[in-house]
Amino acid sequence: MRTSQYILATLKETPADAEIISHQLMLRAGMIRRLASGLYTWLPTGLRVLRKVENIVREEMNKAGAIEMLMPVIQPADLWLESGRFEEFGPELLRIKDRHNREFALGPTHEEVITDFVRKEIKSYKQLPLTLYQVQTKVRDEVRPRFGVMRAREFTMKDAYSFHLSDECLDSTYQKMHTAYCNIFKRMDLEFRPVIADTGSIGGSVSHEFHVLAESGEDAIAFSSQSNYAANVEKAEAITTDTRPEASKELNTFDTPEAKTIAELKAKHGVKPHRSVKTLIAYGATDEEGNRGLVALVVRGDHDLNELKAQKLELVDSPLELAKDEDIINTIGAAAGSLGPVGLEIPVIVDSSAAVMADFVAGANKNQVHYSGINWDRDVADYTVADIRNVVEGDPSPCGEGVVNIKRGVEVGHIFQLGTKYSEAMNAGVLNEQGKNQPMAMGCYGVGVSRIVAAAIEQNNDKYGIIWPEAIAPFQLAIVPMNMHKSHRIPDIANDIYDKLTQAGIEVLFDDRKERPGVMFNDMELMGVPYTLVIGERNLDENKVELKNRRTGEKTMLDLDTVIEYFTAMFKN
Amino acid sequence: MRTSQYILATLKETPADAEIISHQLMLRAGMIRRLASGLYTWLPTGLRVLRKVENIVREEMNKAGAIEMLMPVIQPADLWLESGRFEEFGPELLRIKDRHNREFALGPTHEEVITDFVRKEIKSYKQLPLTLYQVQTKVRDEVRPRFGVMRAREFTMKDAYSFHLSDECLDSTYQKMHTAYCNIFKRMDLEFRPVIADTGSIGGSVSHEFHVLAESGEDAIAFSSQSNYAANVEKAEAITTDTRPEASKELNTFDTPEAKTIAELKAKHGVKPHRSVKTLIAYGATDEEGNRGLVALVVRGDHDLNELKAQKLELVDSPLELAKDEDIINTIGAAAGSLGPVGLEIPVIVDSSAAVMADFVAGANKNQVHYSGINWDRDVADYTVADIRNVVEGDPSPCGEGVVNIKRGVEVGHIFQLGTKYSEAMNAGVLNEQGKNQPMAMGCYGVGVSRIVAAAIEQNNDKYGIIWPEAIAPFQLAIVPMNMHKSHRIPDIANDIYDKLTQAGIEVLFDDRKERPGVMFNDMELMGVPYTLVIGERNLDENKVELKNRRTGEKTMLDLDTVIEYFTAMFKN
Repeated sequence: MRTSQYILATLKETPADAEIISHQLMLRAGMIRRLASGLYTWLPTGLRVLRKVENIVREEMNKAGAIEMLMPVIQPADLWLESGRFEEFGPELLRIKDRHNREFALGPTHEEVITDFVRKEIKSYKQLPLTLYQVQTKVRDEVRPRFGVMRAREFTMKDAYSFHLSDECLDSTYQKMHTAYCNIFKRMDLEFRPVIADTGSIGGSVSHEFHVLAESGEDAIAFSSQSNYAANVEKAEAITTDTRPEASKELNTFDTPEAKTIAELKAKHGVKPHRSVKTLIAYGATDEEGNRGLVALVVRGDHDLNELKAQKLELVDSPLELAKDEDIINTIGAAAGSLGPVGLEIPVIVDSSAAVMADFVAGANKNQVHYSGINWDRDVADYTVADIRNVVEGDPSPCGEGVVNIKRGVEVGHIFQLGTKYSEAMNAGVLNEQGKNQPMAMGCYGVGVSRIVAAAIEQNNDKYGIIWPEAIAPFQLAIVPMNMHKSHRIPDIANDIYDKLTQAGIEVLFDDRKERPGVMFNDMELMGVPYTLVIGERNLDENKVELKNRRTGEKTMLDLDTVIEYFTAMFKN
Repeated sequence: MRTSQYILATLKETPADAEIISHQLMLRAGMIRRLASGLYTWLPTGLRVLRKVENIVREEMNKAGAIEMLMPVIQPADLWLESGRFEEFGPELLRIKDRHNREFALGPTHEEVITDFVRKEIKSYKQLPLTLYQVQTKVRDEVRPRFGVMRAREFTMKDAYSFHLSDECLDSTYQKMHTAYCNIFKRMDLEFRPVIADTGSIGGSVSHEFHVLAESGEDAIAFSSQSNYAANVEKAEAITTDTRPEASKELNTFDTPEAKTIAELKAKHGVKPHRSVKTLIAYGATDEEGNRGLVALVVRGDHDLNELKAQKLELVDSPLELAKDEDIINTIGAAAGSLGPVGLEIPVIVDSSAAVMADFVAGANKNQVHYSGINWDRDVADYTVADIRNVVEGDPSPCGEGVVNIKRGVEVGHIFQLGTKYSEAMNAGVLNEQGKNQPMAMGCYGVGVSRIVAAAIEQNNDKYGIIWPEAIAPFQLAIVPMNMHKSHRIPDIANDIYDKLTQAGIEVLFDDRKERPGVMFNDMELMGVPYTLVIGERNLDENKVELKNRRTGEKTMLDLDTVIEYFTAMFKN
């Protein structure tokens, strides 16, 4: 491609509304433009990258035995009503009425459509297992679209769905997909982690997220310092290996007029956070008469409550809802800031790490008063112990090896063992070997194709711009001729090299603009082209051209006579 | 691909709701399934064809210098309000409101979005000309979706847009696109015609449609029997070379109590249609006071009024609206069925072919009475002559060579010289060589990618199913082993050939189901795979396999030892 016949659309200034580096660089490198909130046009350079990502995903899906198809973006509301997700999805599901006032949704995902398709087409276990996928535009009306294509309202996803007679068969395909996903990110040279994840609103039991590691990532991931173990912080089990010391202090009250938080307790009274506990009050599970009481959730002062873990407990209402101030005061007689486990007449759930504390500090359930020297059993008779906190760095790793490290990641893939959630709701069964109808076990496997583009940039950039991994670079090589207008020799040689490399199937961006060399170099670096071939008078005098590596900055002199063979060999794959 | 690991989804029965052959065959061959009215899922076989069509279109666009990008499906209503098409488009434009109650449209086309993009990015004539294109999902809420993907509500289009400083430059790109379109359909081996077309609601001056010829086509196309001339019947000029004979009969009335139509006049009174005229009453153009009267439109009895031609006349209201019965009776004193040009006190517009008639028959503007022996000038003093009819077979061709033939076609492409319609409405200008802002001249160029798939089938089928042109076939070759389960030899050989051909990059469908040969042959013929390799015991005894050509039915014996070389040579391109 010649830049004179292309639309580079690079920007010198960083657009003010772009918060993260990938969003800034995608705008500056002429990859995307905003059409409206969360809606982006992919410019030629951006689209080239997007297509490369798509193709790698497609190739690995095909290798794993998945078959490509294409379902509509517009989906009948009926199917969503059938699965029960029409209401559940909330305003993220964009709804639309056609000219006959029939209701439709713009697909944020395709479980309903594929299940409907498969229940009509697949009748017998002999046709299973079956894995179908598509690369399709998805629509989610995000509360707060942001970070460019990272969290857009219209985006490209690869979504695959597998169908099985048994959970064992589902698990086998799930493992294949896990491998395929690892291959996808390896081929793109991205540092990533498969992470044990929560299944959330999609449903099902087993689930992994695939995260590209990057500081701007929205998710925190807990790793083992020694093994391959990685889990979303929300999902990672918090391990306590400590044992509880004997009680050595008496229970005493002390006045805390200006200490309502753990930080204030430390500042005003010198209480170390890990020597105190936080007591959070939430609503309990609804009883037979339809009422729900309160429960106390106690975690160590330096720990955070994990809501997902807490709401899975029988005693706690799900989704977890923290109690209103008035309900707390009416029941306990004190307000948040002075609460503690001693003397409570509601169920008390204590995090495992808090349960091994002795002689600790907590609110006295009397405004502006705290207890010191609290000890379990002696001072609090009735309580339940459970894992209800987020892991923190230095915790023993749940896998049993090493300790927990926490890094941030961008979620670019998510795979689920759905089981029979959708096939039961939508009556999608096949005849099994005994001739009896049986709901199919399902898996679903998503890759955020357009998000990968942004995530790759988050992980691969410097102050000059993007540094593309070779497999997904918009061009393999840039040719920058210096001062083309000053001689015939340079344009002749540059054109000749460009023509020959293009004919050899190499994707070359030939900067044939009449710009100063600095402008051209800056653009090629901003765009992140992995290699730049510089053609200049002085080197030509010695029959040389210069090759520059975008990532390492390394410069290599090449013989002009062998330059074509050099690149054809280099880009052979 | 092995059929055992694929989803064939072929159907024996023709689905009752599929009216045209391509719709029937796409369902039967397992290419598509209906999700809802006008919404189709592309099954693996259908998608393979769709992608081949897409790629051919993409390659020819790239060759013609167009650059690919991708714009969102969801478009802000603001842009449509700016161009004036938000109302104009009517209910075909699917409108949607997001969670913040902001209005959007699902793009049926992208003139607004691309014009908005270009006006922001392109500032100088030096960046022109520029041709951008995308292959994208389009949405149109059709009044009556039908014929499967032929007229769907969600479909795939390639849409290109070009931008220029001058009309000459636009014309030059327009010609390039014309050539690229011809190349596209030639590469697909489709019989097609570029046809002079009406610009309709898209606007602009010059326009061509590209039609794939097929009996089921919705459009009638007028061709010259001798030249390349082709035009949409609506657009083709009707040429009259006859001259008017002298009047030889007196004007006489005759009673026609049971003859209100041309057919009844012939049946009851022996009046030949081409010796009578039809008089249609329409509303005239609105006058300065806001009123509109009536006009009479007179065509020969065997001709049809062309509404597009008539409404372009100054005297006629546009769009053309035929007058209500009560308005006709109030103004003329007689009802439709007894109308004629004699004695009318409204403007009379006579088609050129009717204007060269003498001694003809028409209604007398008195119920149940007709005149015979009518002659222009003598009996009708005041009238205007214009071309207001559709051409018919046998008319002199408008190009001056040969006569008009009429065939039916499926519109698969449409190119327009838009001029400055959008760039003026949306203020999209560049600085010209004099440093003055000048609106860009625009062209737009559409290909109905998904519709081509159906059109190709309309043109290429027989009673057994589809006959794919090789360039867009879902598979290049089918392997059908006979009675695989009866010997080891057949599966071993079939597997070996399949593996080797697949490795050589040939797209092979290997029917490894344990089905009767008849079932397999029927499926491969239905799916239209161009070649089928049959592996059977009897031929193997002589070291032979049989190759069958789907189109010609021709069978060729191949030596088993050279079969790999045979196909690699055959499919080299």
